[in-house]
Amino acid sequence: VTTAFPSRAHGSLKCSDLGLIVGRLRPGPSDDITDVPGVRVGHNTVDRPESHIHTGCTAIEATLTNGVVPAAAHVINGYGKPAGLAQIRELGTLETPIVLTNTFAVGAAYQAILEHMLDRDPALRQGFRSLNPVVAECNDSALSDMQSLPLTPSAVRVALDAAAEAPVAQGSVGAGRGMTLFDLKGGIGTASRVVAGDRYVVGVLVLTNFGRLPELTVAGLEVGKVLAAEAGGSGGPPVPAPPGSVVAIVATDAPLLARQLERLLRRVQSGLARTGSIVAHGSGEFAIGFSTTPAELISSKALADMAELETSGGIDELFAAVIESTEEAVLNSLFNAESMTGRNGATRRAFPIERLEELLGAAEGLRRGQRAQRSNAASRTEV
Amino acid sequence: VTTAFPSRAHGSLKCSDLGLIVGRLRPGPSDDITDVPGVRVGHNTVDRPESHIHTGCTAIEATLTNGVVPAAAHVINGYGKPAGLAQIRELGTLETPIVLTNTFAVGAAYQAILEHMLDRDPALRQGFRSLNPVVAECNDSALSDMQSLPLTPSAVRVALDAAAEAPVAQGSVGAGRGMTLFDLKGGIGTASRVVAGDRYVVGVLVLTNFGRLPELTVAGLEVGKVLAAEAGGSGGPPVPAPPGSVVAIVATDAPLLARQLERLLRRVQSGLARTGSIVAHGSGEFAIGFSTTPAELISSKALADMAELETSGGIDELFAAVIESTEEAVLNSLFNAESMTGRNGATRRAFPIERLEELLGAAEGLRRGQRAQRSNAASRTEV
Amino acid sequence: VTTAFPSRAHGSLKCSDLGLIVGRLRPGPSDDITDVPGVRVGHNTVDRPESHIHTGCTAIEATLTNGVVPAAAHVINGYGKPAGLAQIRELGTLETPIVLTNTFAVGAAYQAILEHMLDRDPALRQGFRSLNPVVAECNDSALSDMQSLPLTPSAVRVALDAAAEAPVAQGSVGAGRGMTLFDLKGGIGTASRVVAGDRYVVGVLVLTNFGRLPELTVAGLEVGKVLAAEAGGSGGPPVPAPPGSVVAIVATDAPLLARQLERLLRRVQSGLARTGSIVAHGSGEFAIGFSTTPAELISSKALADMAELETSGGIDELFAAVIESTEEAVLNSLFNAESMTGRNGATRRAFPIERLEELLGAAEGLRRGQRAQRSNAASRTEV
Amino acid sequence: VTTAFPSRAHGSLKCSDLGLIVGRLRPGPSDDITDVPGVRVGHNTVDRPESHIHTGCTAIEATLTNGVVPAAAHVINGYGKPAGLAQIRELGTLETPIVLTNTFAVGAAYQAILEHMLDRDPALRQGFRSLNPVVAECNDSALSDMQSLPLTPSAVRVALDAAAEAPVAQGSVGAGRGMTLFDLKGGIGTASRVVAGDRYVVGVLVLTNFGRLPELTVAGLEVGKVLAAEAGGSGGPPVPAPPGSVVAIVATDAPLLARQLERLLRRVQSGLARTGSIVAHGSGEFAIGFSTTPAELISSKALADMAELETSGGIDELFAAVIESTEEAVLNSLFNAESMTGRNGATRRAFPIERLEELLGAAEGLRRGQRAQRSNAASRTEV
Repeated sequence: VTTAFPSRAHGSLKCSDLGLIVGRLRPGPSDDITDVPGVRVGHNTVDRPESHIHTGCTAIEATLTNGVVPAAAHVINGYGKPAGLAQIRELGTLETPIVLTNTFAVGAAYQAILEHMLDRDPALRQGFRSLNPVVAECNDSALSDMQSLPLTPSAVRVALDAAAEAPVAQGSVGAGRGMTLFDLKGGIGTASRVVAGDRYVVGVLVLTNFGRLPELTVAGLEVGKVLAAEAGGSGGPPVPAPPGSVVAIVATDAPLLARQLERLLRRVQSGLARTGSIVAHGSGEFAIGFSTTPAELISSKALADMAELETSGGIDELFAAVIESTEEAVLNSLFNAESMTGRNGATRRAFPIERLEELLGAAEGLRRGQRAQRSNAASRTEV
Repeated sequence: VTTAFPSRAHGSLKCSDLGLIVGRLRPGPSDDITDVPGVRVGHNTVDRPESHIHTGCTAIEATLTNGVVPAAAHVINGYGKPAGLAQIRELGTLETPIVLTNTFAVGAAYQAILEHMLDRDPALRQGFRSLNPVVAECNDSALSDMQSLPLTPSAVRVALDAAAEAPVAQGSVGAGRGMTLFDLKGGIGTASRVVAGDRYVVGVLVLTNFGRLPELTVAGLEVGKVLAAEAGGSGGPPVPAPPGSVVAIVATDAPLLARQLERLLRRVQSGLARTGSIVAHGSGEFAIGFSTTPAELISSKALADMAELETSGGIDELFAAVIESTEEAVLNSLFNAESMTGRNGATRRAFPIERLEELLGAAEGLRRGQRAQRSNAASRTEV
Repeated sequence: VTTAFPSRAHGSLKCSDLGLIVGRLRPGPSDDITDVPGVRVGHNTVDRPESHIHTGCTAIEATLTNGVVPAAAHVINGYGKPAGLAQIRELGTLETPIVLTNTFAVGAAYQAILEHMLDRDPALRQGFRSLNPVVAECNDSALSDMQSLPLTPSAVRVALDAAAEAPVAQGSVGAGRGMTLFDLKGGIGTASRVVAGDRYVVGVLVLTNFGRLPELTVAGLEVGKVLAAEAGGSGGPPVPAPPGSVVAIVATDAPLLARQLERLLRRVQSGLARTGSIVAHGSGEFAIGFSTTPAELISSKALADMAELETSGGIDELFAAVIESTEEAVLNSLFNAESMTGRNGATRRAFPIERLEELLGAAEGLRRGQRAQRSNAASRTEV
Repeated sequence: VTTAFPSRAHGSLKCSDLGLIVGRLRPGPSDDITDVPGVRVGHNTVDRPESHIHTGCTAIEATLTNGVVPAAAHVINGYGKPAGLAQIRELGTLETPIVLTNTFAVGAAYQAILEHMLDRDPALRQGFRSLNPVVAECNDSALSDMQSLPLTPSAVRVALDAAAEAPVAQGSVGAGRGMTLFDLKGGIGTASRVVAGDRYVVGVLVLTNFGRLPELTVAGLEVGKVLAAEAGGSGGPPVPAPPGSVVAIVATDAPLLARQLERLLRRVQSGLARTGSIVAHGSGEFAIGFSTTPAELISSKALADMAELETSGGIDELFAAVIESTEEAVLNSLFNAESMTGRNGATRRAFPIERLEELLGAAEGLRRGQRAQRSNAASRTEV
């Protein structure tokens, strides 16, 4: 019966709820970035349809020790406006929450993190310490009046204050509110994988705003082509393409230092590729990652373990975990997002999750049809 | 009849010959890097089974103008031993052929390029000019006695002298002779795509030596899992894993400068990901690219065209061409390689191309089976 | 008579006014970044001594063509909080003014640039275009209550609106208001050099906030040591060291593209080194540069000229121009800054320009004294 | 008496022997890279005047633990042909000796390191291990017939076998044999500094082949201008400029990991700048560094100490040590090199060390003369 079908109502849908198994590693308990102990996430969704505003922000933070955790940043395609990356790279540490938001709210988010930290740490008000707020963004102007600068620092602080160590609502929430994914509705998604014999968790949270419909790939199958063919049948014009983007936050409790974390981050691109991404020109694609084990608490033993993990190739499991979590997080953002009509009547449809099996089957058929056709034509075949 | 089945005998097999359509763009006339005018490729395969030698080298060169073409280099995973990348990055130009070979032959290849150029350009023997030989490598020691240093500069010069503007033999030839791909036999593969309304061609040549069998993905389907399950049934131990690697050479006649070429190269990773690559720790992965249009002949018009291409997002088609050509080139290297038994009796099987349709079908079944099983278990499903 | 002595009253003092010739190239007409046609600079100095506020901001802008100019960015020491660098590097273009300010005003400056551009370009309010505000900062908390977040977006917009194509006031103005240089008062400095037979100008503007007194080097002489010895004689404690930083903006009308501009920027470090910089851990050091010749107007002829300039080594003159302009700009910031007492009674003395000749002489004496002493001791000398 | 004057006969001359004190930190016992325990250096000078050959190679090695030491690499100006940098950067480790040599001997040196390691480590002949030889070069073709490829792998192995933990011969030896520095004779130089209260040593070895005479700066004074003026007086044409280059090897026993080492390496440029370097277009400038404390032996305590050193800014002393050692090492290479006449009668004069005091005095006079002249002209001076 239809009531038994998995629902996206609470933003908690995972690929596995739809019968999709992404990759070979086992997800963490909640298949969520907050499976990594000490990681907290908070959303503030700002929706004012009468003003054509459908936006928000999402804060991710780790428990810091002596003010920092080991961290890294990686640029896949630098057509974007992140703040804070230079210092992460130089020092290999993160010292504030990370805020994801819309492109024109970077200044507000930067200000909010600053105010938030000044309030939380009175010592920061004295002396000479600086602070490195970290912000990343996607452009939601296809659905939201980004140009009216709808987010204030106060609005961002709501997300910072809401950060909690609990499974993250996915889909059209927080920073994901107005985002577009493969011409459908995108937003926030998250997933996790357990590695090294249950010793560590790798979690990924993505803000998705990229791709064209025909590129959408689910479980290796060109589901987007099937949907595009259907849409094409309706005679409607293609959805105009605003600049896209995607941001991935990678967290782990494996005691990794900056260089190793940066290696993990470079694997995000491979996870995105499996969903159909071509890393388009206009798509600012960034990965920011951290280990919740503070550098100062990393023991010689842990250091030796990690060196061994790297030398032995055991780090490959962490790489695979990043790729699988990224792929699933993108799909989770897609499957949880609900249809939305934004400014100028622009509409982004939700992915029809109830038709997933049918669409996968159709994509298989598409492939087989191409092969049969090809076989018959077979002009270059040697005999 | 079976005689009609495509054969890998001449190393000229393409995915399309097997009914596989990779991506959405149209291949060039030969679906080969030499579709880019002025690009020449030469192999020297060095096979001395009695000495456990199964190796070789492959030279790729472009017609230079005033000694250079615009070029770029990109490191996906730096666990490798390329030579020449620093100068390519600083000056944005390439001034010699590129040689691919085994890991312990980098010195010999470097020397060979130097000697080759000194012979070809007498002016180089005078004065103060330096030269920047470009070499990249993969480790073929699983099948070949790499440690006996079987390649001399003379052997490499055979490949340089053989370079010709003609479709490239693929599979276990040249530098690909002793390479392993997804625990099967790999080697050299190439493919191309036509872009910008037939104005330009993008070609990719790969040397493949990476991945584990269960990761192998063909047309989005986990064909490697099917093969691994079959192999597992035989009770045999897994093939031990030597360090892998992959090198991709990207050529185009689009009048791109170094910064734009570097952007193209970053998309190689996405193409590899679609074949199942996790960019493993031990896999040195590098991309080197060039435009055959010399910087000095790039007209204002061409420059403006390219700027427009970039601004308009038209460059996305070039990005897609790199991804599709890379994915297909990897598969072409797999489909053309023949089974080989190397030193210590190590064997790498050829991919069973005659079973491709069956394996794709089995992979589809595997997916559907997982979904059905999952559906029944459906523990997290909301109702 | 004393009235004849060069005065810093108007912030227009140049090294040459003090008889110092920095380097071998000839300065532009005003020895100022605005010697580069189309470059405009504006300050807003925010001084509220009663609230312990001594800060400000400085805007630098170029005339854009089709919204951009070719640009590059270079990180010397990434312990800083710049915004906008990722996109500059990816696309090789700059599309907004650059604002320099204090560390905790980056968010406000970002917001201000955004508002400024939205006001100036109504088309930006429509559609999907994003914008990449560029901000760089130094930490002025030694003299100013940075933590009270004294700069608002409106304050920053005053600097943006003030931008004019006229010689730049130097010293304790704009973003330089509260800055400390070699434990003395620093701030804003600028200089320029004419290159390629008068065809082009290279201009540099710096915001200086780095170094310890004994490191200060003027014209190669350790003037800082002389001053430190004097100060040490007073028995006073050393000035506590807040985090430093320095930002250099490099402009030129030479028709350079991003890769070449980035090469120029890497030479900024060499100019800083000549003033005594050790690129300290806490000193965020960044260089951002642009060419005022828009990429789209770069002719084949210009492109060929530039290629020739690079091949022939003629680009060396541009490199030297960056080094000399940077060295002089730092000294100009020092020589123009006036003594200031900031929060908590912290004082930064002006460099005593009227004693420059005496101090240079003393530094020469110091060197000769060391040599004489050494000569006598000469324990390792072979005879 | 003249017999008392320091002699360069043994290549052991240090700046201090000439009464020059470079920087503020104390040199190690031998003011030499081998002051770092476990560092060994060996030269092979290849001089065959009848064949116009004046070249050689220099090997630097550290005692490895489990096959590696922590390492980093930094490109100042990438117009050069180093091998091995990609893997150093990816893994943060060094696993072979480093060889410096002439530009056309990189292949031979690569091969030599490979053979040397295969001979030394029989285990390497088995299995699948790769190896990452590290080579850097300068172009000595102004004095030596580099194009005849005078160095064989055997010749390079002589240097590898000669590596010893003893003070390094400087000047026109080993790789430095045919090098040119500021149009004078250059070569090999080394220096060291003691840091962190005698706990650690930082040592630098340079191969110098850069700069034009008027740029040469000694102790901040433009000694090169004085020499150039003298030479100009003779009416002779300027020495033609072949491509230059400089390589710096940085070693330390401070327990630093790759990220921190890379920070040290970035300070090499500042040391070079103080000798007059403009980082010319044609000058490939590279820094490679390592810590002799193996990563696996770095204790939590050491890690915490280093983190503290970095947080507290104590790492600044290590930065200063790199800068001072680099500056002195360049001067040491200059002061130890003897005049040489190479192919085509090209001559590079030794720096006249016996006139050093006179030249420094003349440079002071030059400066004062400029100031006086300027003062009289003083056109821009406000009154």
